Amino acid sequence: MSNPASEIEVILAAFADTWNRHDMDAFAALFAADAELVTVTGRWLRGRAEIHAAHTAMHASVMKESRIELRDLSIRVLGPDLAIARARWRLEGLVGPGGVALPPRAGVFGNLVARQAGAWCLLDTQNTEIADPPAPRP
Amino acid sequence: MSNPASEIEVILAAFADTWNRHDMDAFAALFAADAELVTVTGRWLRGRAEIHAAHTAMHASVMKESRIELRDLSIRVLGPDLAIARARWRLEGLVGPGGVALPPRAGVFGNLVARQAGAWCLLDTQNTEIADPPAPRP
Repeated sequence: MSNPASEIEVILAAFADTWNRHDMDAFAALFAADAELVTVTGRWLRGRAEIHAAHTAMHASVMKESRIELRDLSIRVLGPDLAIARARWRLEGLVGPGGVALPPRAGVFGNLVARQAGAWCLLDTQNTEIADPPAPRP
Repeated sequence: MSNPASEIEVILAAFADTWNRHDMDAFAALFAADAELVTVTGRWLRGRAEIHAAHTAMHASVMKESRIELRDLSIRVLGPDLAIARARWRLEGLVGPGGVALPPRAGVFGNLVARQAGAWCLLDTQNTEIADPPAPRP
């Protein structure tokens, strides 16, 4: 019998692993064809192809040497084939224009994870940076 | 027969309406008891009570006179009782410490909307500010 929570942990681990290997083909393959992803800067990407293109560009520049680490993974199982998976992340090794090292960043990302044709994929992802210092915002 | 998309439009309109009336009791009542909400600053609120308390505090201060306007509403129906609803927002009328007027802000928020016991509610919400100017971020 399958255990949705442990299978969902695997796909979140693959998110981080493909990110850290900068393998954006494998990264994009984690997403459903019609997945949407909102980046921390509020870019609303629609479909796996857009997600792939945007992340390929990032991992050729600012994210080229970056390493992401996930923590506080929380899974809310909504059904046998659907769950919300949310985690905090910390990102190090960012490089700005001219090769200048940028400070680490942290955030929270929420994912709707679905089993489609037997395999789990990311159906919807939204990312938010953790503001430092905290300020009252909506 | 019910039309999920039109019913979901109603709950998103209620989000904006209760915000603009600064009626945080009615605002919080739009959320499921176990809903989560990530604010634009990356605060991970868990449960309706935390969502209520955090937004009550905001609407007693920086958001006291604010007005939110939604646009580009996109609904992806996942089933008869579940959908993703995402929209861009623009927020005006923010007031900082000492009563100083703050500039308008804009963002994107994603919602998982569910029908529970016959009524639609917000099961999960994540908010992201649109960075200006855009910068390459994860």
